[in-house]
Amino acid sequence: MIDLYTWATPNGHKVHVMLEECALPYRVHPVHIGRGEQFAPEFLAISPNNRIPAIIDRGGPGGAPMALAESGAILIYLAEKTGRFLAPEGPSRHLALQWVMFQMSAVGPIFGQCYHFRTDAPEPVPYAIDRFTREARRLYGVLDKRLAEARYLAGEELSIADFATWPWAHGIAKQGHDPADYPNVIRWFEEIRARPAVRRGVKVLSESRRLEMNAAERDILFGDAGPRRPTA
Amino acid sequence: MIDLYTWATPNGHKVHVMLEECALPYRVHPVHIGRGEQFAPEFLAISPNNRIPAIIDRGGPGGAPMALAESGAILIYLAEKTGRFLAPEGPSRHLALQWVMFQMSAVGPIFGQCYHFRTDAPEPVPYAIDRFTREARRLYGVLDKRLAEARYLAGEELSIADFATWPWAHGIAKQGHDPADYPNVIRWFEEIRARPAVRRGVKVLSESRRLEMNAAERDILFGDAGPRRPTA
Ligand SMILES: N[C@@H](CCC(=O)N[C@@H](CS)C(=O)NCC(=O)O)C(=O)O
Ligand SMILES: N[C@@H](CCC(=O)N[C@@H](CS)C(=O)NCC(=O)O)C(=O)O
Repeated sequence: MIDLYTWATPNGHKVHVMLEECALPYRVHPVHIGRGEQFAPEFLAISPNNRIPAIIDRGGPGGAPMALAESGAILIYLAEKTGRFLAPEGPSRHLALQWVMFQMSAVGPIFGQCYHFRTDAPEPVPYAIDRFTREARRLYGVLDKRLAEARYLAGEELSIADFATWPWAHGIAKQGHDPADYPNVIRWFEEIRARPAVRRGVKVLSESRRLEMNAAERDILFGDAGPRRPTA
Repeated sequence: MIDLYTWATPNGHKVHVMLEECALPYRVHPVHIGRGEQFAPEFLAISPNNRIPAIIDRGGPGGAPMALAESGAILIYLAEKTGRFLAPEGPSRHLALQWVMFQMSAVGPIFGQCYHFRTDAPEPVPYAIDRFTREARRLYGVLDKRLAEARYLAGEELSIADFATWPWAHGIAKQGHDPADYPNVIRWFEEIRARPAVRRGVKVLSESRRLEMNAAERDILFGDAGPRRPTA
């Protein structure tokens, strides 16, 4: 059994989707980040950077409990535990890890700053809005080019790189971009979105968010194509 | 033989240090990012996000050449190739990957924005300077707390997590922080800095940078404790 400490955000959804795809049993413990629950000492003991998602795998290596934070590390851990969605060796393994790193270091941080400066910042900061919107557009371009030459990010097989990136491709229009400019991203996004396990994954905690967050926050995190849409 | 496409920056130094620590033979191909050489089609074919570092391992999986970008993915690749600095399984493997992800997703992007807004931006943007300086301080605090409880980031063994993070801990003072606030970071930084392979790693391309970059750029990238200092 995996104890999952999470919230209904893109970084949470990466792991929700992976757990569903691997059909691993898990128990959800909501960490309401808007209320500051990520600063509780018990949570910091698992996630030293006070971020969701984090897990405790009760059946970790050698049968001992294993606590782990950082969505990218959790995806690798679950892939190596189950033998799913990451080749044990060879080029496609390392390309999958390359695209996981691209998501972790570029897509996640830059889209996060975009949301902050475009929607959350208490004052308008035109220089930063322009900087991060342009960089997000460039990153969508990198993804689109890759997905023009390969079905999935790591090649012809679905991998943890796709699960890491997919939740961040929600709300492309809300971020000020034209989806028509990224036809390959859209093709890939829709294919993954249609998977039953993915549909289940993005439903994790969606009810608690819906009730507790305001409309703007919901849009930020779910965007146009999020779980609130009847088709998702 | 590994062909290494790089420049003398923190992300380059991660890989220079790892190659030296593993005593792997490599050939340096400078990519002068100030001149835009990262946009050459031959380089984009290896590094789709136009970033250094990237490698082509002429003796990759199955003896075929393997091209790879993203410093975090290159560190994992080299660790798995050599069996060094990343346990093949067990808790310390996954904790090392957790801290690699922390570096890739937080330390690198946030310190990078700090440098931009504190030094490079063509106009002063007080809100962004404050935002990223405060976040960098928080991240140093997370590192210091971890390094108070463990000798290295992943535990008692030096790992790729340390090589990923160490080059970014240069220049703590230039970023507006007081090194005295982070005694454990400093202890760890100095221990790693004293390693002969690390000293060799940070010398890669330091000459070309010294000649070609201006003083401000050198400071951004090498900071107080960089390779220009006689002790380094
Ligand atoms: N690099 C981390 C980032 C996780 C992250 O940013 N989580 C956000 C929600 S999407 C969070 O917990 N924020 C709470 C906070 O920063 O205090 C990962 O990929 O797991
Ligand atoms: N996530 C990447 C980031 C690499 C990166 O930011 N490289 C910088 C130099 S430190 C670069 O090549 N910049 C050139 C550009 O952005 O055009 C990694 O860790 O390899």
